Amino acid sequence: MSNQNPTIQGAVCPVPLAHKDKIVMGHGSGGKMTHDLIAQTFLPPLDNRILHAGDDAGVVAGSELAQNLSDSFRLAVSTDSHVVSPLFFPGGDIGRLAICGTVNDIAMMGAKPMYLTAGFILEEGLDLEILERIVASMKSSADEAGVKIIAGDTKVVQKGSADDIFINTSGIGVIFPGVNISGANAQPGDVVIISGYIGDHGIAVLEARGELGFTSNIMSDVAPLNHLVEALLHVAEHQVHVLRDPTRGGLGTTLNEIALQSQICIEIEDELLPIRPEVSAACEMLGFDPLYIANEGKLIAIVNQSVASDALEAMHNSPYGKNAVIIGKVKEAPPKRVLLKTRYGTRRVVEMLAGEMLPRIC
Amino acid sequence: MSNQNPTIQGAVCPVPLAHKDKIVMGHGSGGKMTHDLIAQTFLPPLDNRILHAGDDAGVVAGSELAQNLSDSFRLAVSTDSHVVSPLFFPGGDIGRLAICGTVNDIAMMGAKPMYLTAGFILEEGLDLEILERIVASMKSSADEAGVKIIAGDTKVVQKGSADDIFINTSGIGVIFPGVNISGANAQPGDVVIISGYIGDHGIAVLEARGELGFTSNIMSDVAPLNHLVEALLHVAEHQVHVLRDPTRGGLGTTLNEIALQSQICIEIEDELLPIRPEVSAACEMLGFDPLYIANEGKLIAIVNQSVASDALEAMHNSPYGKNAVIIGKVKEAPPKRVLLKTRYGTRRVVEMLAGEMLPRIC
Repeated sequence: MSNQNPTIQGAVCPVPLAHKDKIVMGHGSGGKMTHDLIAQTFLPPLDNRILHAGDDAGVVAGSELAQNLSDSFRLAVSTDSHVVSPLFFPGGDIGRLAICGTVNDIAMMGAKPMYLTAGFILEEGLDLEILERIVASMKSSADEAGVKIIAGDTKVVQKGSADDIFINTSGIGVIFPGVNISGANAQPGDVVIISGYIGDHGIAVLEARGELGFTSNIMSDVAPLNHLVEALLHVAEHQVHVLRDPTRGGLGTTLNEIALQSQICIEIEDELLPIRPEVSAACEMLGFDPLYIANEGKLIAIVNQSVASDALEAMHNSPYGKNAVIIGKVKEAPPKRVLLKTRYGTRRVVEMLAGEMLPRIC
Repeated sequence: MSNQNPTIQGAVCPVPLAHKDKIVMGHGSGGKMTHDLIAQTFLPPLDNRILHAGDDAGVVAGSELAQNLSDSFRLAVSTDSHVVSPLFFPGGDIGRLAICGTVNDIAMMGAKPMYLTAGFILEEGLDLEILERIVASMKSSADEAGVKIIAGDTKVVQKGSADDIFINTSGIGVIFPGVNISGANAQPGDVVIISGYIGDHGIAVLEARGELGFTSNIMSDVAPLNHLVEALLHVAEHQVHVLRDPTRGGLGTTLNEIALQSQICIEIEDELLPIRPEVSAACEMLGFDPLYIANEGKLIAIVNQSVASDALEAMHNSPYGKNAVIIGKVKEAPPKRVLLKTRYGTRRVVEMLAGEMLPRIC
């Protein structure tokens, strides 16, 4: 056999050139490229104290809204556009995803999500029946979360200028008085909890795309987590330091965001990670690391170790937290790092997701 | 010549069949089809008191947010997705449009817009330099309006699954205490004011698309109107009954919305409508009615006639209101109707925009 790359035809370069001046799929990965795009393109012109915090939602204090309001009233404000493909997948659909995505981002600030907006971009030719199914799913998810949609917008673009339907949801919630939750608040000695099995959503969407190569029974975990957050805050109000939902980019990327924001080290243990055997098998076959697979109904809670068992118990009593487990702890050093303790006792660095793994997962 | 339609080939139907079960461009027109889609598909499942009001933004009273808040504190919440094509046009671009669209929807509730979110859907292959220009334009428009972007989201879809860039902006503002503004508040005897020339935005975008067939000097009017609203409220606070920006669907459709909400008749006079000669000429050549051409920097103010001259004077002193004029009045009957008094003294009914006129105008 020739040692020349047989795919080289004429002048075609065998190595894809990096397009430093173009948007590539990796910019939407939720991983390092997304962070770089935000840091280089969005933040410099748009920067302000609230946006700069880099949490799942912006926080506005009462006195910033009106002179006569106290800062014990705080709003969490968030936005999320949803472009998942396909629209329907085991365990959910783009409508449920759109509601839960924004509900969860608001809940992760220790807030009660209350009011959402919905912006639809529809492709000409979309079946009305599909739209109706999606809106019905939004309705039932909004009811479950206890939120109302109070403003909307609909745009239609020509066939071929979008892909069926994209949905933006934005929303506001009121932060529970006394809580102080941010990705910047993890402290050495804190315990790291995950609310259940990781990777389910990503694998369920892959299966729906027919990209698994086999069938599995994995269902997306897409769910509103605000009631779980309330249950947690009820028992551990002031001792919950960080809440974050590991969506695009997965647990590995989200823990890195927290380690960066809090300037601490997070050490998790491979043996403690809750991964369903089917997800584990799918990842092994496809060469994926479950640490980077998207979740849509899981949260990371970083809490003072004194409340760890109460927090776990409260989560176990909530429908979306019954498989919650401790997966690691916060250490002082090396700062801004996530380490994984392997089954052999060695430690490896967990980086942010580098490229793009699963496009249009949410 | 044969009297047979020469385009009929085989079994092709010469009359496009109505797709009652598909999304068509008209569903995004902002006119009657958009209203029907909202009334039939979105409102029944999602209905609630705030959404039902049908104003440019949802209004949340303080006591609905927190028990200890008074209802003198009210939030206006709005959302808008932007899909304009092309991205840059005389007088503006999608970035400025995205900021102004939501700023204006909030301002139309008699509110001070304060915080915005930005959700980007990017097509793979988009030039980063274009994105940077758009973000810079968002920044300068946000500065002009005095609003901050406090949360964002970026999704990337494969080449061919979107058209360069779509931007959703959502936002919140605080309603000025004491004002009570809604499309439902027009009262017989009120005066109808438009803040300046109509139709500029639509014609400017058509020109940028090369669809005018000639060149004109028309610039889009896209602008943040919140300072104009403040100036107006300063002189006529309790006497401003309706504020509405006639965007998609144009002045004719927006007046119909108000006539429906308030169950009154609005009579405007053809001779009083401010239309630039170039816009008028373009509309005549293209067979468009300027009453249905989109504006992005104009507002309709319906005020008690006792404050009409003060209101006009205040608007004339504000940069985006210097061409404000009275165009008509509110009458009791026939209810839910908009009438146009022609130059010949006759009256004709102005309906909502029926189909689609200019797709992707905002």
